[in-house]
Amino acid sequence: MILTLTPNPAIDVTYRIGAHAPGDTNRVLEVQRRPGGKGVNVARVLAAVEAPVQALLPLGGEAGRWLGAELDVPFEAVPISGENRTTVTVAGDGHPTVYAEPGPEVSEEEWTAFGSRLAHCLPGADLLVVSGSLPRGASPDLVSDWTRIAREAGVRTLVDASGLALLAAARAGALVKPNRAELLAATSAADEAAGAAALLRLGAQLVVVSRGADGIAAYGQGGVRIVPAIPDVHGNPTGAGDAATAGLAVALAAGRPLIEALRTAAALGAAAVLRPVAGEVDLPAYRRFLNGAPA
Amino acid sequence: MILTLTPNPAIDVTYRIGAHAPGDTNRVLEVQRRPGGKGVNVARVLAAVEAPVQALLPLGGEAGRWLGAELDVPFEAVPISGENRTTVTVAGDGHPTVYAEPGPEVSEEEWTAFGSRLAHCLPGADLLVVSGSLPRGASPDLVSDWTRIAREAGVRTLVDASGLALLAAARAGALVKPNRAELLAATSAADEAAGAAALLRLGAQLVVVSRGADGIAAYGQGGVRIVPAIPDVHGNPTGAGDAATAGLAVALAAGRPLIEALRTAAALGAAAVLRPVAGEVDLPAYRRFLNGAPA
Repeated sequence: MILTLTPNPAIDVTYRIGAHAPGDTNRVLEVQRRPGGKGVNVARVLAAVEAPVQALLPLGGEAGRWLGAELDVPFEAVPISGENRTTVTVAGDGHPTVYAEPGPEVSEEEWTAFGSRLAHCLPGADLLVVSGSLPRGASPDLVSDWTRIAREAGVRTLVDASGLALLAAARAGALVKPNRAELLAATSAADEAAGAAALLRLGAQLVVVSRGADGIAAYGQGGVRIVPAIPDVHGNPTGAGDAATAGLAVALAAGRPLIEALRTAAALGAAAVLRPVAGEVDLPAYRRFLNGAPA
Repeated sequence: MILTLTPNPAIDVTYRIGAHAPGDTNRVLEVQRRPGGKGVNVARVLAAVEAPVQALLPLGGEAGRWLGAELDVPFEAVPISGENRTTVTVAGDGHPTVYAEPGPEVSEEEWTAFGSRLAHCLPGADLLVVSGSLPRGASPDLVSDWTRIAREAGVRTLVDASGLALLAAARAGALVKPNRAELLAATSAADEAAGAAALLRLGAQLVVVSRGADGIAAYGQGGVRIVPAIPDVHGNPTGAGDAATAGLAVALAAGRPLIEALRTAAALGAAAVLRPVAGEVDLPAYRRFLNGAPA
């Protein structure tokens, strides 16, 4: 079983409108609401490829109640007094506009309870995946704590985070999976190889860098492995990174070789591009891509 | 007691952001959520001036539960299976951008139950105020039905609506309070006087037109009465129309002369401009304006 941890789940709202009129009133033609947050998307992709999965997340307020009712993967919720956030994506005539709420304030006591619940869920897990932003005011050290709790249970941790949380994950010895922009921003490195080397020096067990059309690169103590992107895949890149994380996770949890994990990540990421909604993948395309067939 | 009917209540969400970046991701710095919908704003202003008030509204889903928990005026809720809407206002560096959801689909059976609950609430009411849009797919004839139900209970109805709902209210003999743009749009009249005459011909008992800086005009069978706007009032015009409706309602419900009702409307509307949030009024300023003092 793969355990996914989503520190800052969200109600992902998409507003379909006509021509976008900033500074004016826009009539919403269609509303879609679905559970979101990167860890939730990873869990949904894992469920789609029939990998055993459990999600762990803090839920609070009416938004938390809604998320608990709508989430379609097995999950453990830790109650919080704050209200979970909403992200609004406005899809009009141009590039989508996103409004991202910062998320609830979670107390130290609530994070302690969260860590205890994590320890409770870990027996039986083959891998812990920590994915997405931390709520407002939360310490990046939480990511180190979770990685350590997992190690004490004999479970490896794969972290998809940015900024200080990415650095904290590296320091705690996690496997980390930033995209190239996150890697460069967090390390202030001049290029990808230098950034990956910096994370390895901090203590990261492995640095997997998703690079869009340039494929996926994995930097470890033994050097770098690169798999190319699936060529000629066009669609919606939203959620492709989460699907790639799911691909990495499913192969690593099964003890497959690194190069196979990277190929699985590339195939699942490309299969997600073919679907309009984050957390969904085109399964027949995924199987074709895994077998080396083109798009 | 004044009974306010809100056919399409909303969670009014305001996102404060920095510079607005359409087509990109905007970090929300501050989130405010409050119960909204024009009838809810009217009820809150009535409560603020200590007029006895009761709100009647359809509530459904998690949003409805939230509205019921947060509403700070006495209310009767009719349960619906759909989910109440949200409106998102983005306040950045320019003019605010609004995204308005269409609202839930309410079944015929639910509207019938709504009418029954209205009949149940009317005894003891001095006036019914119907304010705001109808949810998606709802027939404008509902406004006629509510006006008729009120008349059968011996209660007059004041309707602040637009389009076909405004015409239906006029046909049913309600007092109507469009703003000038709504009046011209609904009647396709060349000017305000012609538009008001058209509504009176349809059957409206009184046509009160709010005209911003040009004050308020009331057209009846006996001619037109006009009160000027309170001069030199600067602030946020959002909700000023709802406050003016509340002012009209409180004077009409107390059986005050029309000219006094118009002056009360102008004073409350101006007092709302001085507050940043719809449904709130500057009470000391309201009393000054009523006494003829300048801003």
